[in-house]
Parts: sequence; C-alpha cells; structure tokens
Amino acid sequence: MQCPFCKPHVEDLPIVGRNEHCLSIDVADEILAGSRIIVPRQHRATPFEMTEAEITATFELLRAAKLEIDSAMSPDGYNIGWNSGAIAGQEVFHAHLHVVPRFRDEPLAGMGIRYWLKQENNRRPNQ
Amino acid sequence: MQCPFCKPHVEDLPIVGRNEHCLSIDVADEILAGSRIIVPRQHRATPFEMTEAEITATFELLRAAKLEIDSAMSPDGYNIGWNSGAIAGQEVFHAHLHVVPRFRDEPLAGMGIRYWLKQENNRRPNQ
Repeated sequence: MQCPFCKPHVEDLPIVGRNEHCLSIDVADEILAGSRIIVPRQHRATPFEMTEAEITATFELLRAAKLEIDSAMSPDGYNIGWNSGAIAGQEVFHAHLHVVPRFRDEPLAGMGIRYWLKQENNRRPNQ
Repeated sequence: MQCPFCKPHVEDLPIVGRNEHCLSIDVADEILAGSRIIVPRQHRATPFEMTEAEITATFELLRAAKLEIDSAMSPDGYNIGWNSGAIAGQEVFHAHLHVVPRFRDEPLAGMGIRYWLKQENNRRPNQ
C-alpha cells in the first residue's frame, strides 16, 4: 500500500487531530498557512465512498479545526471542500477535505472556490 | 425574512431534490452547467452551524445529485465545497454546498478548488 494517507505512511505526516474514523493533518502550505486536510482512516478514493460515520467524524474534526485555527490565527473565513477526480484537481486518490482559512489581507480575498471556474475562459468548446 | 434560500423565496428556485432537512437546487450557471447547491431548510449562516442531521441529509442529497448528474452528463470529476464568510467568497449568507461537475474538455480541467489560492500571487503582505 503506497497511499500517503493510509497507514503506515500517514503517520509520517503532522497529524493534529484524530477520532475513531478520521485524522486531521496540517498541510504546511507556504501560501495557505494554517490549512488542514481531514481524511478517513480507511482508504476511500473520493468523498462519495465515505460512510455516514466517516462523514460525521469528518465534521467533528472540522469543527475542532475551526476552533483551533480561529484561536491561533483569527481568519476571516474558510473554504471547505473536496476535489474528486484528477480532472477536478484531485492529486492524492484518498479522499481529503481541504480546510482553508482565508484572510482579508490576501490578494485574492473575496474569491471563492468557484470564482475562476465559472469565468467565460472556462467555457467548454461545444457549450 | 429576505434570505433567498429560506422559505418562501427558496420555493421560487429550481428545486431538484429534497429530504427532511435539506434541498438540492439547480444553479443554472451558464459556464458550470449541471452545478447544484445543497442547502439546509433551516437558516444556517455557514456549514459550521449545521446540525449533524443536516450534514447527514446534505450527503444523502449529494449522493443522489451525483447519480443524476453522472447519468445526465457523464462528468469526469466533481468539486464539492462551501465558502464560509465574505472573505472566502460566500455571497448568500445561508450555507450552501456547491456541487460542480467537471469535464475533461474544460479549459481549466485539472485545476482544483485551491489551485489559484495557493499561488505566490496570493501571498499575504507580512507572510
């Protein structure tokens, strides 16, 4: 098993929260400081394969992440979401919920997860 | 109550799925054809205020949306996520999960929800 979000490899990552079904991991992104991902402990390719218990556990860790990030960094908002499939930008094929704190002093403050995708320059050729 | 995702205004929107706690609505975006939002029936400003029952109901409608969109349009992937707060791109302050089918012939195929945000040009001034 070479999946980086499965055991044993996931244990090399900075795990900052855990419950029965999921782990919360610090992404350590240089630009998106404070970002985390929340992953099920069991291998699930996309969020559509996650069980109801895993979804509930994901949201338990999401609420904990918000409290901790709010306390540490006082962000002004969050983007919370999954990419499902390579065409949608998924790079590791083990479902991971991105939790991205957003700040009013970012150059791209105010732009949400669909902002670029819904522009005219993303129109499909036969649409 | 002027919230467009609360009763009675939400009933003017193209509701394409419903269960006890949530509604699934066709966004009718010209570029992102097939996109939906899933909203709790009760007013919740952001996903952090949603109850466990509402989260479970959201994912029930999400799975149904995938089956219907897959059948109608055969997308190659999905982005699934919330913007929480104006700085994060939220425009209607009633939580709504974006469900965006993605296609390999999009000019921006392969780019996920964090692609632009994590670029150098979104670095915060004092970071």
